[in-house]
Amino acid sequence: MNLYEEALKLHEEHHGKLKIEPNVPCADAHDLSVAYTPGVAQPCLEIAKDPENSYRYTGRCNSVAVVTDGTAVLGLGDIGPAAALPVMEGKALLMKRFANLDAWPICLDTKDPDEIVAICKAIAPGIGAINLEDISAPRCVEIERRLINELNIPVFHDDQHGTAIVVLAALINCMKLKKTDPADMKVVISGCGAAGSSIIRLLYSYGFKKIYAFDIDGCVDPDHAENYNDLKKELLNYVNKDHQQYASLAEGLKGADIFVGVSAPRLVTKEMVASMNDGAIVFPMANPEPEITYAEAKEAGAYIIGTGRSDNPNQVNNILAFPGLFRGALDAKATKITESMKIACSKAIASLIDEKDLTPEHIIVSAFDDRVVPAVAKAVADCAKADGVVRK
Amino acid sequence: MNLYEEALKLHEEHHGKLKIEPNVPCADAHDLSVAYTPGVAQPCLEIAKDPENSYRYTGRCNSVAVVTDGTAVLGLGDIGPAAALPVMEGKALLMKRFANLDAWPICLDTKDPDEIVAICKAIAPGIGAINLEDISAPRCVEIERRLINELNIPVFHDDQHGTAIVVLAALINCMKLKKTDPADMKVVISGCGAAGSSIIRLLYSYGFKKIYAFDIDGCVDPDHAENYNDLKKELLNYVNKDHQQYASLAEGLKGADIFVGVSAPRLVTKEMVASMNDGAIVFPMANPEPEITYAEAKEAGAYIIGTGRSDNPNQVNNILAFPGLFRGALDAKATKITESMKIACSKAIASLIDEKDLTPEHIIVSAFDDRVVPAVAKAVADCAKADGVVRK
Repeated sequence: MNLYEEALKLHEEHHGKLKIEPNVPCADAHDLSVAYTPGVAQPCLEIAKDPENSYRYTGRCNSVAVVTDGTAVLGLGDIGPAAALPVMEGKALLMKRFANLDAWPICLDTKDPDEIVAICKAIAPGIGAINLEDISAPRCVEIERRLINELNIPVFHDDQHGTAIVVLAALINCMKLKKTDPADMKVVISGCGAAGSSIIRLLYSYGFKKIYAFDIDGCVDPDHAENYNDLKKELLNYVNKDHQQYASLAEGLKGADIFVGVSAPRLVTKEMVASMNDGAIVFPMANPEPEITYAEAKEAGAYIIGTGRSDNPNQVNNILAFPGLFRGALDAKATKITESMKIACSKAIASLIDEKDLTPEHIIVSAFDDRVVPAVAKAVADCAKADGVVRK
Repeated sequence: MNLYEEALKLHEEHHGKLKIEPNVPCADAHDLSVAYTPGVAQPCLEIAKDPENSYRYTGRCNSVAVVTDGTAVLGLGDIGPAAALPVMEGKALLMKRFANLDAWPICLDTKDPDEIVAICKAIAPGIGAINLEDISAPRCVEIERRLINELNIPVFHDDQHGTAIVVLAALINCMKLKKTDPADMKVVISGCGAAGSSIIRLLYSYGFKKIYAFDIDGCVDPDHAENYNDLKKELLNYVNKDHQQYASLAEGLKGADIFVGVSAPRLVTKEMVASMNDGAIVFPMANPEPEITYAEAKEAGAYIIGTGRSDNPNQVNNILAFPGLFRGALDAKATKITESMKIACSKAIASLIDEKDLTPEHIIVSAFDDRVVPAVAKAVADCAKADGVVRK
């Protein structure tokens, strides 16, 4: 039985990867009179006096809604809300497994950003945080930004920022290993969608200043911005400050120090990697087939290689970020997740390998390292408090 | 420590009455590759081919969304969606405790029926059924009816129908005990809101034909219908067929066989009960204070008395109905809950007391009787199949 057959069997036999369990006694009539009527009236009245008391008397302090419209599910695309449910259950399962969060899927039968925003706002009083998931670009960016502005609970779209946070964590350790400064690094990003844009913004916020971005139309270039959509125009705040007119990704990679790919299979050749500077850092993460294989990048002389795959060294795995990030945001009663909380998350992940233990094959910890979630949660919570984005 | 203090302590200490638990193994990387990426793609693809497969490969087959807008919470009224959360958690707890259903609260920050309907429709692809809860009348009636028409999953507003189902169950046993026919009974209902209307419709559907309804404006009367709202106008299909012009509830109760109250405290006197026919059946269920106390009704000569209270005999408790009803509807993959499924539910509850064991103090079983949910679930599922309201 291969993995896909095994997965189908598991899903059919278990009928759902999550179950609800009572968190209070409910054996007899007395138990129910405390947990339900008439006793339940008392916490209701306390919350009616001040809705903030919902964090004190309900599961809101630990709950996450995993919200999707099913338009960009894994590599499968727009398969619809019902077909997205197994992934959302899986995401909620990871939240429980890694960070003891109570997450529940909400699969929406609408693709209209206004409706998705309205629904998320409507359900907010009963939940602690919203994890947007597998919503296609560019709607996902608009939806997330509006919700961050209009709600006072954490809203986070993992597909945009999860990879960005872990890429930055890996690059922080690459900088330590190479004993170099991010501002001196020439960085080439392939892919300017939701994930690519977030990577660019986060790397720039951290201190990478020489960034060049490529998409299917070539190099993002301030002198050719007239036809760019808003998201791509915004990237001009972060990339190509010296107005390079690279004719191709191959041209851009010449003399580059870092390549990060979130684009499409087989866009990068061995020759292109060989044309990068000595000590090249290569993160080909297109899913499921990368821009260049680990083996080819190695043969071409890349110094550090990170991929999305668990069967290569240095897996850039977003499970390193989101469980601890939500844990920390809820622990601190954060009202939003800021760019500096994301960077705090990256630094916390990076810090889990002692500098003396860093090697080109070991720049990022395993998702199964028990230290990850506590370290990330503490760093994120501390940062939220320092930023003042916490409930009174 | 009184019950309210105990309830507040419980709610504060446990932070939520529900928790999510994994329903599949998730210890190691292999487990996650089956439950999450890449294995999860396979059930996703099966559901993308046919959304009905969501019942096969996800928790949809066992899940219930408990949806409220917080406008009519217990006896507390319009306390808002956040303050309603403890009750919704409690409802979901009962669903798990009694029928092993995985229910989750959704508290909506909108009172607009159009928005509530739109949100319920949007979330439907990922859930098995919707339990509407604590939504004020008459919006609750419109919202439920529209959802029943526009969705193909069970939608049920317990505040309307839960009490009705259990009242009918109790009355079925009263008819057995009195060896009489429902069509011969003069029935007086006090209260024409959401619950009263549902009681009237259900009793009529079962076979009670001489029903008189009263509200704050007096007797519902086909000759004075010009100012009635739609809900009250509709009641004229079921009540006062002989155009009685009772001047008061007291007038209506003279010579009545059955009184059912879902109205307001202390509306019924001992004299009024004494004016009913011999063998009177009296169900004063206004909450928290009834139309007449058990003791007074008894003194006034009522033969069978049912109340909403656990400290009197014959507790009319909606916990007898909704867990088994949802269990049966989901077991049968019902597309809706019909009037005949509700009657099947009443009959199943009634059947749990052998005719020889019926007494005026024992016409309805306890909610903690383990036979209730299986009996109700089977009856409801069988009825759904017989009615043809099940998924293909």
